Amino acid sequence: MVNVESNLHHCKFEVPEIIFGRGLLSQIGSCARRLGGHKVFLVSDQGLFSAGWVDKAIKNIMDAGLEVIFYDNITPNPKDVEVEAGALEYIRHGADVIVGLGGGSAMDAAKGIAILVSNGGRIKDFEGSDKIFRPLPPLVLCPTTCGTGSDVSQFAIITDTEQHCKLTIMSRCVAPDISLTDPDTLETLPDEYVCTTATDALSHALEAFFSVASTSLTDVHAIKALRLVSTSLVEAVRERKAADLENLARASLHAGMAFSNSLLGIVHALAHPIGGLYDANHGSINAVLLPEVIKYDIPVVTEKLPELAWGLGHRTDGSTNTASEVVQETLVSMLEAAGAPRSLRSLGVVRKDLPELARKALKDVCIVTSPRQADEKDLLAILERAY
Amino acid sequence: MVNVESNLHHCKFEVPEIIFGRGLLSQIGSCARRLGGHKVFLVSDQGLFSAGWVDKAIKNIMDAGLEVIFYDNITPNPKDVEVEAGALEYIRHGADVIVGLGGGSAMDAAKGIAILVSNGGRIKDFEGSDKIFRPLPPLVLCPTTCGTGSDVSQFAIITDTEQHCKLTIMSRCVAPDISLTDPDTLETLPDEYVCTTATDALSHALEAFFSVASTSLTDVHAIKALRLVSTSLVEAVRERKAADLENLARASLHAGMAFSNSLLGIVHALAHPIGGLYDANHGSINAVLLPEVIKYDIPVVTEKLPELAWGLGHRTDGSTNTASEVVQETLVSMLEAAGAPRSLRSLGVVRKDLPELARKALKDVCIVTSPRQADEKDLLAILERAY
Repeated sequence: MVNVESNLHHCKFEVPEIIFGRGLLSQIGSCARRLGGHKVFLVSDQGLFSAGWVDKAIKNIMDAGLEVIFYDNITPNPKDVEVEAGALEYIRHGADVIVGLGGGSAMDAAKGIAILVSNGGRIKDFEGSDKIFRPLPPLVLCPTTCGTGSDVSQFAIITDTEQHCKLTIMSRCVAPDISLTDPDTLETLPDEYVCTTATDALSHALEAFFSVASTSLTDVHAIKALRLVSTSLVEAVRERKAADLENLARASLHAGMAFSNSLLGIVHALAHPIGGLYDANHGSINAVLLPEVIKYDIPVVTEKLPELAWGLGHRTDGSTNTASEVVQETLVSMLEAAGAPRSLRSLGVVRKDLPELARKALKDVCIVTSPRQADEKDLLAILERAY
Repeated sequence: MVNVESNLHHCKFEVPEIIFGRGLLSQIGSCARRLGGHKVFLVSDQGLFSAGWVDKAIKNIMDAGLEVIFYDNITPNPKDVEVEAGALEYIRHGADVIVGLGGGSAMDAAKGIAILVSNGGRIKDFEGSDKIFRPLPPLVLCPTTCGTGSDVSQFAIITDTEQHCKLTIMSRCVAPDISLTDPDTLETLPDEYVCTTATDALSHALEAFFSVASTSLTDVHAIKALRLVSTSLVEAVRERKAADLENLARASLHAGMAFSNSLLGIVHALAHPIGGLYDANHGSINAVLLPEVIKYDIPVVTEKLPELAWGLGHRTDGSTNTASEVVQETLVSMLEAAGAPRSLRSLGVVRKDLPELARKALKDVCIVTSPRQADEKDLLAILERAY
């Protein structure tokens, strides 16, 4: 179980070194080198390879005088078997630094490989909070989507292919040494992923802001992320201008800094078992669940709503009633305008599985920091409404 | 010379692990232990000793199973000779972790000692940007004032007693491993230091916000710091309620996270030579200079003023003219109400020294990120107006 501070004035805040800016993928090699690496294990995927980013990364790494091993045996919702195979490759080649380049899948796979090469065992041995006892090899993570936050977070999510569920691994060890974002990489992100990964960042920001473990250190980043998403989500989806994509990349970073330290809530507690069971897109699941969970949370977070309404770009009269309406309406209309999916059914979720999903969500580490204590019945009701 | 990113969209952001909360000085020993320490070199001062905090810290460190060496041969505006003597003590005792407990002086002295024990030489050898090449011993910094930000910053300021000036040392190496703030320690802070250290934090936040190297990652912390100071400065000075003191401690932390990554400006570029020449209180100098420097900066930062006015607690009409007036009036009236000093003369500055101070300020590392490029004449004019 996560140990949540009972006293909300107690803050813990930890983020990796952060580098952010267009064109800065060129620093990928120097980052790996100054962490002491000589042979880079580069974890990425076929999409990034086809778009030419992997070649650029490999060139930068080699220009920095390092060797590089490329590993792309990973799929969306990365699997335990892929991570375990990757760890064997890392060891076989004698690599000494890991670079993850991609979305949440590539970066979480890189984290899983890092865990195994220094700790041994199976990836499922590390499920839960603070189960990693040996330091990981140096790790650089370079996100190439508008969501995930894996590049700054203390989480790694790996699919257990035997149990058809997601393993949530939470440890300060899995935050990388360096988070390096080059928003130029978003230029080649397929259209549908702009919306679905940005709604993941939106969920991170909202859940971090409502979390019982939120503090002033996390709130400032959550609010900034919300402001950036509300400014640029719809425009970025429709017109894909570089400035809007950069805002979304920046939103993802701010949201990651927030949720990594305040943790999350019911959206992610439900999204993990759904993603594990159906291999469905994580951001799409969040987009569907978010309005229902926010509606459920609102009665217990009323005092934070005026600031949230402001973050979403509205100058309200400061009353919580007005703010409550503004928050819900803005959220729903933004998701609609961005073309986010509207129902679990449309994502392939089967109705008869809902009770099992609710049961599994109750055991997810993310449920602990939900502002409203939900039981199985509450979770099932949320799933039914989102179905 | 500091290498400032010419492209403002390029961000670098680095902060240590942060722990903040009332009563958390109790974690000082466990922090030193998990950094691998066995023998703690505890740097503090007589004021903290008299107030009982040093005894508490020593007990916590010993309860964690570590030995402790106490070093308190430091004075405000810590001197090169004190730091060099401290380094010899550290080596003589075979200590292996440094804990700084106190205001900026104790913490900067701790940093200076850390630099010397692993790099050798004289402290003045490390003046400027990125002159430290060997890793420092593990470092935990525990601030006990409402200002400084040394506990999170990449700066150390040491007085050169031969040249009667301040050495500004800037390096990512001098940020500690852990920043541990227990706002309870503010209970025993002498009255005059509440105002002067909080106005240091106020200067950090304002200069960070106006800095040419500011980014969204630093701005969110600068604005939060400004909001906390404007909420609690006057009340904290007058009534010393725990909640207001905690807000100021939190403001100091946010401001430190901002300025450590965006750097500062003319206030600090001028305050360093003044502090070096007269051994005057750093926060008092800042309080006197701040209104004049802000007035000088405002023409070139107009687009940031509405957000700043908002941070200071005002809902303006959004025009920059209104915001400009609001910012200046709020700042002056807040400093007045808090009883901050009003003139350089009152701090012992001698008029004939002003030209020399302006010349020295032009060479200070902090001038580089000033939003407005000042020449010697501009700096002298600011000093004259603040005299």
